[in-house]
Amino acid sequence: MEINYPNGKPYTQKPQPQNTRQKSQNYSNRGMTLEEDLNQSNHYYVTNSIAVIHKKPTPVQIVNVDYPRRSAAVIKEAYFKQASTTDYNGVYRSRYIDFEAKETRNKTSFPLSNFHEHQINHMKQVKAQGGICFVILRFSATDEIYLLESEHLFKAWDDMLQGERKSIPKKDIEQHGHLIPISFRPRIDYIKIIDKIYFNRHSSL
Amino acid sequence: MEINYPNGKPYTQKPQPQNTRQKSQNYSNRGMTLEEDLNQSNHYYVTNSIAVIHKKPTPVQIVNVDYPRRSAAVIKEAYFKQASTTDYNGVYRSRYIDFEAKETRNKTSFPLSNFHEHQINHMKQVKAQGGICFVILRFSATDEIYLLESEHLFKAWDDMLQGERKSIPKKDIEQHGHLIPISFRPRIDYIKIIDKIYFNRHSSL
Repeated sequence: MEINYPNGKPYTQKPQPQNTRQKSQNYSNRGMTLEEDLNQSNHYYVTNSIAVIHKKPTPVQIVNVDYPRRSAAVIKEAYFKQASTTDYNGVYRSRYIDFEAKETRNKTSFPLSNFHEHQINHMKQVKAQGGICFVILRFSATDEIYLLESEHLFKAWDDMLQGERKSIPKKDIEQHGHLIPISFRPRIDYIKIIDKIYFNRHSSL
Repeated sequence: MEINYPNGKPYTQKPQPQNTRQKSQNYSNRGMTLEEDLNQSNHYYVTNSIAVIHKKPTPVQIVNVDYPRRSAAVIKEAYFKQASTTDYNGVYRSRYIDFEAKETRNKTSFPLSNFHEHQINHMKQVKAQGGICFVILRFSATDEIYLLESEHLFKAWDDMLQGERKSIPKKDIEQHGHLIPISFRPRIDYIKIIDKIYFNRHSSL
């Protein structure tokens, strides 16, 4: 009988390595990345008609493609391009949703080097157009995930350009952001936070 | 002096081929594709703070990447994946905008083979979530571009699944759709149509 993880991935029992120290089974080494958890959450939202939010494909500059007879085209040479927007967007209750997700091993602050200037510009444009825009920040050491509305990121970013610190102190994120509890389905229920902030709804999805 | 096209591309005067028949300078052979025109239009919208709409990157399944010393990673083997959503999305006046753009050489109908089932499903999900969803259809022979709201596409698609015709008659598109006049800047001013349909605004952007 085939057993799958809740995210649909096949379960395969890996042999335990003999000579490594037994690691504690916390989030950071259970092999699920922030991206995978968000994909699982977005999949949950779309299949339950809660929201339609997708991760954009990785932007690639294609240089050379081979078209072999009777089989699929093979890209033989391509390069990663820097994204000009954020990674995630979609729709929830008619509103446009746009966000970026990043994680850090730092314990006391979130480095702004995780973001690029054009991403910040994109988020400012989205905000100006009335979109709902935020970042999802994960502190991997403590496995804490926060939703931080984009204006707080803009503030820290603009301060940095004025010569101030190159990271957001964790205490500021705790104060202005919203802790997202990790659950089973969806893993990262950020829509519940969106409900509270933007729709004044205290749902129990 | 370097001269650029309005879309920023460099102008280079190509030598006229000698033995080919002179083609009339209509849209279909001036070398601009529907995609390029939409990119130019979206660029116009974002730089003028009218809307933030982008084309999503082409989805690619990356199989093999080479990391040479002191230079950028090279993707050595990758394959095109079928898109699970539409190509374009973004935000206009707080609302989520989602569309697909296709063209045909047919003169009397638009073949539904231009769309995939998962794209239709995606558009239905977007619609159910309150997003603004449509297709931009170009008849290349006559250089006519129409905006057709997604519900008309769904109707034709569902009829096809019931055994009816595999294309949308052009007269239906003329009747239910909205002709988008081609202009200079932006080339395809679909936001003007969106204004009329969804915001009851008759703007002269």
